[in-house]
Amino acid sequence: MLEPVLARIDNQLPNAIERLFELLRIESISTDRAFKAECRKAGSWLVEQLNEIGFDASLRETTGHPMVVAHHDGPGDAPHYLFYGHYDVQPVDPLELWNQPPFEPQIIELESGQKQIHARGAADDKGQLMTFVEACRAWKKETGALPCRISILFEGEEESGSPSLLPFLEANSKELACDMAMVCDTGMWDAETPAISTALRGMITEEIVIQAANRDLHSGHYGGAAANPVHILTKILAGLHDESGRVTLEGFYDDVEEVPEDIRKQWEGLGFSTSQFLGDVGLSMPAGEANRSVLEQIWSRPTAEVNGIQGGYTGDGFKTVIAAQASAKVSFRLVSNMDPDKIRAAFHDYVKSKLPEDCSVEFIRHGTGAAAIQLDYTLPELKKAAAALEDEWGKPAAMIAMGGSVPIVGEFKRRLGMESLMVGFGLENDCIHSPNEKYEMTSFHKGTRSWARILAALAE
Amino acid sequence: MLEPVLARIDNQLPNAIERLFELLRIESISTDRAFKAECRKAGSWLVEQLNEIGFDASLRETTGHPMVVAHHDGPGDAPHYLFYGHYDVQPVDPLELWNQPPFEPQIIELESGQKQIHARGAADDKGQLMTFVEACRAWKKETGALPCRISILFEGEEESGSPSLLPFLEANSKELACDMAMVCDTGMWDAETPAISTALRGMITEEIVIQAANRDLHSGHYGGAAANPVHILTKILAGLHDESGRVTLEGFYDDVEEVPEDIRKQWEGLGFSTSQFLGDVGLSMPAGEANRSVLEQIWSRPTAEVNGIQGGYTGDGFKTVIAAQASAKVSFRLVSNMDPDKIRAAFHDYVKSKLPEDCSVEFIRHGTGAAAIQLDYTLPELKKAAAALEDEWGKPAAMIAMGGSVPIVGEFKRRLGMESLMVGFGLENDCIHSPNEKYEMTSFHKGTRSWARILAALAE
Repeated sequence: MLEPVLARIDNQLPNAIERLFELLRIESISTDRAFKAECRKAGSWLVEQLNEIGFDASLRETTGHPMVVAHHDGPGDAPHYLFYGHYDVQPVDPLELWNQPPFEPQIIELESGQKQIHARGAADDKGQLMTFVEACRAWKKETGALPCRISILFEGEEESGSPSLLPFLEANSKELACDMAMVCDTGMWDAETPAISTALRGMITEEIVIQAANRDLHSGHYGGAAANPVHILTKILAGLHDESGRVTLEGFYDDVEEVPEDIRKQWEGLGFSTSQFLGDVGLSMPAGEANRSVLEQIWSRPTAEVNGIQGGYTGDGFKTVIAAQASAKVSFRLVSNMDPDKIRAAFHDYVKSKLPEDCSVEFIRHGTGAAAIQLDYTLPELKKAAAALEDEWGKPAAMIAMGGSVPIVGEFKRRLGMESLMVGFGLENDCIHSPNEKYEMTSFHKGTRSWARILAALAE
Repeated sequence: MLEPVLARIDNQLPNAIERLFELLRIESISTDRAFKAECRKAGSWLVEQLNEIGFDASLRETTGHPMVVAHHDGPGDAPHYLFYGHYDVQPVDPLELWNQPPFEPQIIELESGQKQIHARGAADDKGQLMTFVEACRAWKKETGALPCRISILFEGEEESGSPSLLPFLEANSKELACDMAMVCDTGMWDAETPAISTALRGMITEEIVIQAANRDLHSGHYGGAAANPVHILTKILAGLHDESGRVTLEGFYDDVEEVPEDIRKQWEGLGFSTSQFLGDVGLSMPAGEANRSVLEQIWSRPTAEVNGIQGGYTGDGFKTVIAAQASAKVSFRLVSNMDPDKIRAAFHDYVKSKLPEDCSVEFIRHGTGAAAIQLDYTLPELKKAAAALEDEWGKPAAMIAMGGSVPIVGEFKRRLGMESLMVGFGLENDCIHSPNEKYEMTSFHKGTRSWARILAALAE
């Protein structure tokens, strides 16, 4: 039955792209309140699509952006999988660096003939989630059924810390608990080599706002005497790393495990090129912990990164002001058994310890934080999916780690007792979270075919 | 002749305030190109006023905002003075912290009966320069003449680094060179005590832009390996001061002189209250160089202040990005014989020394910089002006230093060979450069009377 399904995917590709474009045109930026209606529109569009395929799909309210939940039966003894994706996207600034409007998707054909889908969300995560939706559509339209029992959960707050996710999982645990989850929000090893992500770094995010004087001051009248919150903030942030690039927070590395030797060897065999990885983005020197390979730095080592900083006058020209406030958004990537709450507490203690007595700090939490994930290598689903991916791509699937976090995977395990099969078709140069985000046409097309194969393999 | 002039100032106060309000309503923010026409409008308004009084006034073009130049004869043997002020104002952000629209001036009457003029520019410098204009008006309208020969120079770029000033002074040095300059852009010692500023800190301003990767990166994919320009910037800025609050730049203190013992004693006798000075703005601990009094810190010690910092995502919510760029605006206050060019070069060297090889820095200069100023205490004009101020306020004029810089004073000395008599009526709590800027009604009224007296005293 698989071959006609794959043929249908090939034949219907133009229609599938047109549907993806419809979704990409919706400006579903979850982190900015101005786009609330657009987020809802994206959810509704997915509900409509899934119902059209034959799912029982509906929009489910939360205190934030709505969830999409859908169910479809499978053969009586078939396993039951929950597929997860997110329909929200990152903000688009700086807008002036985009080569096209971010919500007007286009197919760009390179001189090599290679085609790319350009738009915000093309790779993260609209293009990815649509590979699964289109695989289901092909199965259903071609055979009248799906090989497995499938439930779907699409979230609209993944890029803004998923505030509604936990309550929703808890309130609907019976409905959503399946044999295993499938998550399509990760990448391939390279453009030719499929991958299954077996480890993910966790993350906590925190904003700190340092308050010094009760108003902005003239730096001539007060400079040299009054506390400057930008100075305090830069001392705090500069002190987060020591000279060797290690994070200085108390107990930060207590629960960090070294990568097992066999895994480290597998990684070394992947042919990763540090100079190319950094060269692609205009850099040449690894900036993290000394004496660690870049793959270790991004896959198995925790980090502290300042993702945004702001204070004082930042407009045109110059203003000789001592700001009343300065703020920074800081994230910590977590690995192994690092406890998000413990790291957050250590950060709070550190910041407070650096604060002059007459200044204050406010901590603003964005999202609940997520521990790191490590998948069990012996799961039969892992082997079946790997074989299906090899059938499609002609190369063995790499078992890789990912530097980014997919918080849902931890929640599926903790709240619903499910492991997650993380298969995705993104590439490092997809520019997710950046201007000119793209998704390879190959990723979309062969990604859809991959899911069609995986569903067949898991049903056996 | 003085008494009727003073009486006229008292009688005409409501009209003088109405004229000041006209000027305050003009949104002459020089640092923001959007307000170019408003700056010109402020200049034209002043030309009109001065011509109406009897000056020969005109708007003079520059490559930036225009200058106002005006001349008025005096008695044959009278000395010739050049009065300087600036009609441009600071930006108004953060707008939400203003109690009223910044360009809709209002008189606020406190419960004590004390009246204040609230508007952007009320104190810096429109209210101040109008004290002199109104003093001239009263002299002319009451007596048909001015006691001294007076020229006036109003600039429109003081808040944006005065890029046109030097070329203008050089091109018009014959026309503008007088016996001495008068500058009204400084403050009183306190609300009851007039002051003459005999020392001013100089300043250089510099913006640095650190470039790391060639695009914004996902902190999950690159975090731990890729250079984060915010980290580099915070290390650079945090390293500008050592633990004792001293600036770490090579040679920074080489040309800094200690205050002479007699001057230090005079300062100690002023009854300055550190706890009140800092307490007024919500602080309690001097933040600058250890073992220096606050008056020393702001009057006689050089500083490095970060006036603005920006990098990465600073909008609503959170974005897990490693920015491609981060920037900061930094100013250095200079004292004694510190050479602006030497300090700028030391800063450049320091920044470059902290930069990873694969990152770059751009330096953006705002204005040309100004050395510090120290007036000769033996000048006869200084004594005459001090006596006139004491007559008006009933208290001896304090000979003070100022933490802020008035770059024009250095240029007058260097380019036109003139010393400057710095008399002003601003107060520390005028909130200049901040929301809710105000000027005391007393400052405006008695300031006008003070200039009327000073003109009489200098003519003798």
